[in-house]
Amino acid sequence: MSRPEPQPAPSPVLSFLQRLHAECATLTEGRVADYIPELAKANPNWFGICLVTATGSVYEVGDSRQPFTIQSISKPIVYGQALEDNGRAEVLKKIGVEPTGDLFNSISLEPETGRPRNPMINAGAIATAGLIAGKTPNARIKRLLETFGNYAGRKLTLDEAVYRSESETGHRNRAIGHMLRNFNILSTDPIPVTELYFMQCSISVTCRDLAMMAATLANRGVNPITGKPAIRGEYVESVLSVMGTCGMYDYAGEWLYSVGMPAKSGVGGGIIAVLPGQLGIGVFSPPLDAHGNSVRGIRVCQELSRHFDLHLYNRPGVGRSTIRLKFTGAEFNSSRVRTAAESQVLRTAGRRIGVWQLQGNLMFSTAEVVVRDVLDHAADTDYVILDFKRVLSANDSACGLLHQLLLELSARNKTLLFIQPNRVPLLRRFLRVKLGDRLEAEFHDYDDLDVALEWCENRLLEAAAPATPVENQAADLGAFAALAGLTPEEHTTLTGRLQRRRYRSGETIINAGDPAAELFLLVRGRVSVLVELDSGARKRLATFSSGMVFGEMALIDRQPRSAMIVADTATECALLSLEDFDSFTATQPAIKIKLLQNLCLDLCHKLRKANRELNVFD
Amino acid sequence: MSRPEPQPAPSPVLSFLQRLHAECATLTEGRVADYIPELAKANPNWFGICLVTATGSVYEVGDSRQPFTIQSISKPIVYGQALEDNGRAEVLKKIGVEPTGDLFNSISLEPETGRPRNPMINAGAIATAGLIAGKTPNARIKRLLETFGNYAGRKLTLDEAVYRSESETGHRNRAIGHMLRNFNILSTDPIPVTELYFMQCSISVTCRDLAMMAATLANRGVNPITGKPAIRGEYVESVLSVMGTCGMYDYAGEWLYSVGMPAKSGVGGGIIAVLPGQLGIGVFSPPLDAHGNSVRGIRVCQELSRHFDLHLYNRPGVGRSTIRLKFTGAEFNSSRVRTAAESQVLRTAGRRIGVWQLQGNLMFSTAEVVVRDVLDHAADTDYVILDFKRVLSANDSACGLLHQLLLELSARNKTLLFIQPNRVPLLRRFLRVKLGDRLEAEFHDYDDLDVALEWCENRLLEAAAPATPVENQAADLGAFAALAGLTPEEHTTLTGRLQRRRYRSGETIINAGDPAAELFLLVRGRVSVLVELDSGARKRLATFSSGMVFGEMALIDRQPRSAMIVADTATECALLSLEDFDSFTATQPAIKIKLLQNLCLDLCHKLRKANRELNVFD
Repeated sequence: MSRPEPQPAPSPVLSFLQRLHAECATLTEGRVADYIPELAKANPNWFGICLVTATGSVYEVGDSRQPFTIQSISKPIVYGQALEDNGRAEVLKKIGVEPTGDLFNSISLEPETGRPRNPMINAGAIATAGLIAGKTPNARIKRLLETFGNYAGRKLTLDEAVYRSESETGHRNRAIGHMLRNFNILSTDPIPVTELYFMQCSISVTCRDLAMMAATLANRGVNPITGKPAIRGEYVESVLSVMGTCGMYDYAGEWLYSVGMPAKSGVGGGIIAVLPGQLGIGVFSPPLDAHGNSVRGIRVCQELSRHFDLHLYNRPGVGRSTIRLKFTGAEFNSSRVRTAAESQVLRTAGRRIGVWQLQGNLMFSTAEVVVRDVLDHAADTDYVILDFKRVLSANDSACGLLHQLLLELSARNKTLLFIQPNRVPLLRRFLRVKLGDRLEAEFHDYDDLDVALEWCENRLLEAAAPATPVENQAADLGAFAALAGLTPEEHTTLTGRLQRRRYRSGETIINAGDPAAELFLLVRGRVSVLVELDSGARKRLATFSSGMVFGEMALIDRQPRSAMIVADTATECALLSLEDFDSFTATQPAIKIKLLQNLCLDLCHKLRKANRELNVFD
Repeated sequence: MSRPEPQPAPSPVLSFLQRLHAECATLTEGRVADYIPELAKANPNWFGICLVTATGSVYEVGDSRQPFTIQSISKPIVYGQALEDNGRAEVLKKIGVEPTGDLFNSISLEPETGRPRNPMINAGAIATAGLIAGKTPNARIKRLLETFGNYAGRKLTLDEAVYRSESETGHRNRAIGHMLRNFNILSTDPIPVTELYFMQCSISVTCRDLAMMAATLANRGVNPITGKPAIRGEYVESVLSVMGTCGMYDYAGEWLYSVGMPAKSGVGGGIIAVLPGQLGIGVFSPPLDAHGNSVRGIRVCQELSRHFDLHLYNRPGVGRSTIRLKFTGAEFNSSRVRTAAESQVLRTAGRRIGVWQLQGNLMFSTAEVVVRDVLDHAADTDYVILDFKRVLSANDSACGLLHQLLLELSARNKTLLFIQPNRVPLLRRFLRVKLGDRLEAEFHDYDDLDVALEWCENRLLEAAAPATPVENQAADLGAFAALAGLTPEEHTTLTGRLQRRRYRSGETIINAGDPAAELFLLVRGRVSVLVELDSGARKRLATFSSGMVFGEMALIDRQPRSAMIVADTATECALLSLEDFDSFTATQPAIKIKLLQNLCLDLCHKLRKANRELNVFD
């Protein structure tokens, strides 16, 4: 069947970027910035586009690896660092967040406080640079370079020539620095602060770096390739907010209207745009329009937004897709094998176990759907199992709603069980704070849905028949369903052939790969069928208790044992050898027929159960 | 087990709103608007909060049903209507989208064109009112009331007293109207236009209506309770964009920073805030701050955003949760029952069938993950099945990527099959435009994953063994696995008891509920096991072909038939009656043992297959 593949299949995303690049390369408007001599050296034909998704796909075309200086795109990144170093409240005391219609290099201070209107104008950016922690100017630029490197996913350095050029011509920015010192917005000598500002603007990046930085912001501050955090998630919204209102100078309204992503441009010709939770875009093309934004950069972002429907405000509803699957303990059971009587109980009482398998990100609107659905079914449910195995994240808000749900269910004597809650470590931390000493008693935490299901089933079975024999009692051989229908003489004949064997708790009874040599009648104790996963962990396929038969399938199809079987407790079995089983055909046909009929019936029950359970997933 | 439930479980969302309402009720700052006498009559203590999710949950507290006039909150709604009536390009010619630091009632026209800066200031809103289609003033306000009613999910009316008061005192707005006429932004008599504007501001709403309107915008223009569209989805992003940059007057930056949702306030004391894809908020409390925004309204939105993490820019990654389940045809098969030889082929060749079950919303970032994963596996896969059964929506961008994927796979002679693509009707429309005449040949569309899987399996089996007997050939009774091991004499004895029966295509062979009376050996043709779903549709559980046995399970456990069995083609069976089967125990023990062994083996294979398939869902 297999054919040689000519080459890896080209991605439609990359193909689109290639077409878009060719199309926008024909735009020749705009002028390369020349307010400092070094910037004027840029080749106006340089043109790169890069798109990086929050899941780590990278698509890049054109001059995406051409170095240039980051310029104003450094402003939101440094603002994020200032938030981390000082907290939001302190930063807001020094720098506002209101957009201004003025030019990027206007001083724009609030008349009374001297507070720059926002951190994206030069005055605000210089005030921001003044908030970066570090004992010496050298330590501060080192910290910034490290942060920028975490965003980009590689080590970044300064373009020394541009820095010198910035510093030599930066008189207006020094004036702003002194003015900020005058209003005590800067509380130290403004000269080293403006130097730090010149340095941050002179960091050498590529278009790919920009896209990676944007994708890091889209991914709540974590670089999607390296997995390394560049900024604490809680501050991302503030960085994107100032980009959203002030990032594109006096083009903010039209940009939001036509592109719909928070963004920042720089006079070096770069633009970053961020679609939170989804992707980051970097474009590089030096010629600028009258607003100071890259001409091709603007067009590329508009086209990408339009073609791929990236507008922030054009979003489908997220709520309904969070519940991946929902079933009750009457439809699907644990791998604990039950007697016919127990199965009968669970077919009805199992309805009081409700399982909700969740998927994706839990936040207010998705957790609300789950909490509401659970509460809607609370009257019919005593055990609520929330399976987090496929949950990607949960925020404070979702944890708060789950905490309230837990309290509500607990007040009604209902039990809430969590499967793999450690996938969202915040949940346990959150509940520890809220529940305190009650955490141990109230937080039921399981690694495995199967084990949690069995626990709930056991509670229901105990409630239905408190006198059910416990597993340490031995089963009478006469009570085995596998031996049903035998006459007293046949029973005596058969049991005379059985060989008793005892196993310690934890002892291996059967190894995977063993030839099938016996049928096991479980007289006392409990055994589990286990397979080893690739991860090395063991997965339980079934658990049998006394009165049941195991090991019959390999006897029937004469295959080697497909899984290992281990004694969960001190166990006693009665073994019928393969030879005896086979020889009965000739010597004891009546016994053989009854054994086969009983085995057929057992397989039949198991198959009906498996088919019923497969139906749950349909 | 079941206990009487005291009362419906209270929702944690509602409890929080109640606490928040009590807390914010203590805020007594702000002044009720009094620029028209009717507004000054508002009770400053009125205070309502309502939150409506995009999935249709409604939470409301306080004076959420108190009527008041909508005022400026009408502006974005009417702007949406103007976009629908004129298209985006025409509207942008008349009204800009840039925020202005000026007051809400300033004239703020662009000096050269006379174009109002944005549609949220009065000048822009009056220009917008001039763009509403309708032959007469009466027809226009009727259309607007209908649109507002679609948003709110109930019929809305004017507050005539407020309208008269607005009209009597609206001299400044009339001045604006004439100025707009002067610049030809209004192309007709401005007086009826300003009257329409006074009317739209005087629509009587409640806080619940506002939340419903906000939720309609959050739900791409469709009211989440009534399911009725209020605005075309493609214009929602534009309405939210102007709200995002210009909705809160000169408080836009701080609002976005601290609340992070596009919003609009009105001097009546209302505020709406929209979290796209998730929820809408309405708050009503008349006292206003210096910016003209409701004091309690601002606080409520800030607290809601903080407590429930609603900030637009604080979003987890969405991509990874779209692939709900992924498996190959080697792990899970169609319900077509296969011979041992066929099963063996599929255990290997089945790997060339790849199934991707998708879930949730397909847009760029989620479709990209799917397309990339499929292309990454393209070398190993000949049949790609994309299951849309649980897909909620797909936008143009996702359809575009799927179209490219289809072309890419088709170019490599691979087949792409869609399950239930009609859940996103856009996909077929999109592909029809793109593929034209090739649609029929290239777009493989199935209602049922099971049928698609079978089709792919059949192709693989044909390729593996082109000479496999076709189903119209009769199976020799000697070749039945169920009769394996019989000696020639035993075979003759058994077949002498079999009764031949023929069925027409479509004829019912067994009805659900029938007593089990025979074992069926399928000599020629094909039969399917079917159950009726609650919906009335029939679901296929299994399909058998010649050489196979069916109806054995009910014979073993003596239960009534659990499903119906229907002849898919002209069919011939050989029937062994229950009486003969039972009497063999005494008369033909050797035959009985062999039959039982063969049945055991068959059940064993089926159980192993079911367990393997259950594993796929783990």
